[in-house]
Amino acid sequence: MELNIAVLSGDGIGPEVTNQAIKALNAIALEFNHNFKFKTADVGAVAIDNCNDPLPKDTLSLCKTSDAILFGAIGHPKYDNNPSAKVRPEQGLLKLRKELGLYANIRPVKAYQTLLDKSPLKKHIIEGTDISIYRELTGGIYFGEKYLSEDENVASDLCMYSREEIERITHLAFKAAQNRRRKVTLVDKANVLESSRLWRKVVTEVAKDYKDVELDFLFVDNAAMQMILNPKQFDVVLTENMFGDIISDEASVIGGSIGLLASASVGDKYAMFEPIHGSFPQATGKDIANPIASILSAAMLLEHFELFNEAKLIRMAVEKSLKLDITTPDINTKYDNITTSRVGEFIEDFI
Amino acid sequence: MELNIAVLSGDGIGPEVTNQAIKALNAIALEFNHNFKFKTADVGAVAIDNCNDPLPKDTLSLCKTSDAILFGAIGHPKYDNNPSAKVRPEQGLLKLRKELGLYANIRPVKAYQTLLDKSPLKKHIIEGTDISIYRELTGGIYFGEKYLSEDENVASDLCMYSREEIERITHLAFKAAQNRRRKVTLVDKANVLESSRLWRKVVTEVAKDYKDVELDFLFVDNAAMQMILNPKQFDVVLTENMFGDIISDEASVIGGSIGLLASASVGDKYAMFEPIHGSFPQATGKDIANPIASILSAAMLLEHFELFNEAKLIRMAVEKSLKLDITTPDINTKYDNITTSRVGEFIEDFI
Ligand SMILES: CC(C)[C@H](C(=O)O)[C@@H](O)C(=O)O
Ligand SMILES: CC(C)[C@H](C(=O)O)[C@@H](O)C(=O)O
Repeated sequence: MELNIAVLSGDGIGPEVTNQAIKALNAIALEFNHNFKFKTADVGAVAIDNCNDPLPKDTLSLCKTSDAILFGAIGHPKYDNNPSAKVRPEQGLLKLRKELGLYANIRPVKAYQTLLDKSPLKKHIIEGTDISIYRELTGGIYFGEKYLSEDENVASDLCMYSREEIERITHLAFKAAQNRRRKVTLVDKANVLESSRLWRKVVTEVAKDYKDVELDFLFVDNAAMQMILNPKQFDVVLTENMFGDIISDEASVIGGSIGLLASASVGDKYAMFEPIHGSFPQATGKDIANPIASILSAAMLLEHFELFNEAKLIRMAVEKSLKLDITTPDINTKYDNITTSRVGEFIEDFI
Repeated sequence: MELNIAVLSGDGIGPEVTNQAIKALNAIALEFNHNFKFKTADVGAVAIDNCNDPLPKDTLSLCKTSDAILFGAIGHPKYDNNPSAKVRPEQGLLKLRKELGLYANIRPVKAYQTLLDKSPLKKHIIEGTDISIYRELTGGIYFGEKYLSEDENVASDLCMYSREEIERITHLAFKAAQNRRRKVTLVDKANVLESSRLWRKVVTEVAKDYKDVELDFLFVDNAAMQMILNPKQFDVVLTENMFGDIISDEASVIGGSIGLLASASVGDKYAMFEPIHGSFPQATGKDIANPIASILSAAMLLEHFELFNEAKLIRMAVEKSLKLDITTPDINTKYDNITTSRVGEFIEDFI
């Protein structure tokens, strides 16, 4: 298969980890006789530095002419504590999601057998956990109208949802559940928010098309608790943008490290694959960041094109590296000097 | 001291647990020669049933003429899955908070030595945790304009904050930190939300009045993760209404049971004390609900009136009940038949 892959490695540790994913994909191409072509482009803080735009036109058009996008990370501390910065790295990512119509962010959360001891949660709580989070990604409070009064003393954000926005991701979530344990849990705050009540109504309606899937509801506060008390109760978790951001980062503790979690952001036309961790400025350039989330994003990319054996080989390589403790310091208990690139090489060699 | 206490025990397990708090307060009054007078009033689903109003006028005026309010819980399943219900129990609680100006919800989170094994988190993660969460309670998306289009296909909620709303709770949080470990962590989403950027700006300004307190920032997604990975890093956590709802319920897992967590909701004129758990419909009437959160709310009430020795005695009684496993099934590992009222009697007798 021939695939044109846009590589937007972004800020902080983005480039370091994305490089390991590319190594893995190149090894796969070699092994399975595929032709993967990579083209890189700037996004985020680095793009602001280079051309004062977190999502330059060229980057967007590269994405639109590619088959898939491999994304690194975005964000830089110099913008975080500067409430009056007009241009910010995150705008690049948000605009990308919106322009490409990537309305569904899919985040698998799994407890790896070899890592059970590394989670802050007790083994019996997490063992066997296998969740797929479906987070709406192009609506809600992220994209609603923003307002700052002239005297800068009042600010607001609008959380808005339409039936269509809810329906399309709900169908994806239910279809996914049909191939899993046939349960969808909608996380909302329908006892307070009008938009959540619309979610509850529309999801209930869509559910009628999937009689073999059970539908359950949880208020987001309760869900944040249940995710830790008993994560095994969840199969597919469906939720809006802001709640999904919080719940999925929270759920990352189950695996023992956020450095393990990959995600796919898909729409009707484009698809982007990225680790859920951020740009992790403190680790930048130190060759210590965990590349596994990025490498598993590459596996999700392959699955998107139905290259299941190829993806499986990457997953096997990752499991092997975990088993042998060929891992970066965030999850390594035996060796403290295994680098990002060393993990990448191990996985490349294994493939 | 003479105190007029309004008792709004509400729905579900509310009445059962509140009764135990009253027992404890009566025992304290006897022991310390105080005069506590209790007057009850309806709120929530029970008030809707009785007079089609989740916060009847009489209830509100009782609250306004009392020195403090002891609150139970609110919510009933018959409203949760009915997106088109016009009157809902939660409106009673929200209106009460707004009308009484209870802008700061204070939620202490502690790992009890005797309960370390009951948390889903590992002992070394939670041991020594002592957090005080300051959640803004009368602003944000809870109270912003709600909208549902005529065809009911678009819905929205507005998250709005003003400088004053942020300033007043920020002062409380910093003052609290001065009597604790001198650290405030602001939880927001300033990389995306305009309202969060206002929070970050105002809190940074207010912090200048408290040079002895360190100020730290965390994005809410990261905070949801850090709360589980390393809860000991937190002292005072300050946040807006919706994020506070999620983060504080999540943090309840540290103590091993949400049935242990009390809260105070305070404003410039009134103060209300309530467990953070909900109405727990499945447990209603079974005499199995944990009354400790409600009893500890009574302790917070006493502290509010600077009755520190009295509060201490309640806390000692609670610790004793935990030590002897005179506790309800949610946290009991030895006996499976200790009831809500049995725990209440034990604490009453101890006092
Ligand atoms: C960087 C930020 C804007 C982004 C988000 O909040 O969506 C990130 O946290 C994520 O989850 O991908
Ligand atoms: C019942 C509900 C409206 C309420 C809230 O969301 O504030 C509850 O969850 C709480 O935290 O007190």
